[in-house]
Amino acid sequence: MTKTKPLILVTNDDGVSAPGLRALIDVMSQIGEVLVVAPDKPQSAMGHAITINSTLYLNKLSKENDLITEYSCSGTPVDCVKLAVNEILKKKPDLCVSGVNHGSNSSINVIYSGTMSAAVEAGIEGIPAIGFSLSDYDWNADFETIKSFLRKITLEVLNNGLPKDVVLNVNFPKLKKEEIKGIKICRQAKAMWSEKFDKRITPQGKDYYWLAGEFVNLDKGEDTDEWALHNGYISVVPVQFDLTAHHASQELNSWQWNE
Amino acid sequence: MTKTKPLILVTNDDGVSAPGLRALIDVMSQIGEVLVVAPDKPQSAMGHAITINSTLYLNKLSKENDLITEYSCSGTPVDCVKLAVNEILKKKPDLCVSGVNHGSNSSINVIYSGTMSAAVEAGIEGIPAIGFSLSDYDWNADFETIKSFLRKITLEVLNNGLPKDVVLNVNFPKLKKEEIKGIKICRQAKAMWSEKFDKRITPQGKDYYWLAGEFVNLDKGEDTDEWALHNGYISVVPVQFDLTAHHASQELNSWQWNE
Repeated sequence: MTKTKPLILVTNDDGVSAPGLRALIDVMSQIGEVLVVAPDKPQSAMGHAITINSTLYLNKLSKENDLITEYSCSGTPVDCVKLAVNEILKKKPDLCVSGVNHGSNSSINVIYSGTMSAAVEAGIEGIPAIGFSLSDYDWNADFETIKSFLRKITLEVLNNGLPKDVVLNVNFPKLKKEEIKGIKICRQAKAMWSEKFDKRITPQGKDYYWLAGEFVNLDKGEDTDEWALHNGYISVVPVQFDLTAHHASQELNSWQWNE
Repeated sequence: MTKTKPLILVTNDDGVSAPGLRALIDVMSQIGEVLVVAPDKPQSAMGHAITINSTLYLNKLSKENDLITEYSCSGTPVDCVKLAVNEILKKKPDLCVSGVNHGSNSSINVIYSGTMSAAVEAGIEGIPAIGFSLSDYDWNADFETIKSFLRKITLEVLNNGLPKDVVLNVNFPKLKKEEIKGIKICRQAKAMWSEKFDKRITPQGKDYYWLAGEFVNLDKGEDTDEWALHNGYISVVPVQFDLTAHHASQELNSWQWNE
């Protein structure tokens, strides 16, 4: 770990007032100097969306103390990271942490998650990054329990440095501290959402829909994040943003593309 | 290829009236039965966003002919795929094609792209899928030139079937037909956006920002999609949605996580 205090960028997708973000700021301010840039409203399930067709606003919030500076942002989680790095700091922070999300971002949810997309954006910009999520959607979920783990994982990353072009997707089970068995490096479970739309009718007689999916995990592997979470472990999945399916290239090269 | 006409789902992120979508519908209707479900407004750069905090509307458009059914949708490209498969069709189509995007989705843009996220969503749901993009942002770009390639690539996928959990990211260079050298299987170039925000002031005196990035490709490999496009080829990148950086697991397992 560097001898001077590390500069830590904190963001999330549940918005600047979320208790999960507050818990993360609390832990990070004991480790380093903290810049918070978080959405001014909930931005869950925004994936890697960015704002290109409308304007972006930053709003500086009152200063808590010398070690914490806070902004809210009108954009998506990815916009928050881009504005923080390129407009506010004009340099790379030593670390970017995102969360703590109210709800799990394990398995395929890494793709839909605004929390993880913020971490991935930081990774693309060459900044070590971690997304944290707690498997509890409750606004008043217990974040006290996981604070020592937030600290432990963050210090491990600052001490060791992350492998190149890799960010971490960390998910916590909803358990008491003494029930948590430890931290496990996992792979993303092969799971998906089976959608059942809830079709309703407006007072004016027009059909509309709510997305109302059911999570289906068909992956029985004991090395997955889903397995870890269901068996009392904190899951840590290394995530990459080179989406190339290198293993498929040979087969595709055998096709008759140019005949 | 199946003897009965294949059922093809067509979507995009530029919206239902985009000329790129119209060109794709034209080609697909000569191959199979076509269902179009496309956003009712531009949804570029929406990444893998889904709509969970507001309602979704589907609007059935006038029927062009017996082989083409069209809907516009109030949601994101990923919402379009979910509604098409789970609410309109209530079964999997034989293929999902997305685009043709007005503008390139090569290299890191695969992550921001609504076009590619629609294809990835179809892939997650077990549907063979292709995202098509033309390296020309012009609304009146020349899509005639690429129609024979759209047909060729689609027939190759229908004939061979895609490798499991892989979708294709196809990008066309902005060239005349006789200048195109062929189709190349590539990897995603390691490139990124260097953001320079354009800071302005509202008539009321408040600061605001436009995202105004510059594309930076530091990847000199000759096996990348960027190289292919700049050298007269159509790039085809196999894309996966297991984001696990498997190569990083060993190093991470050597850390002191549980001490």
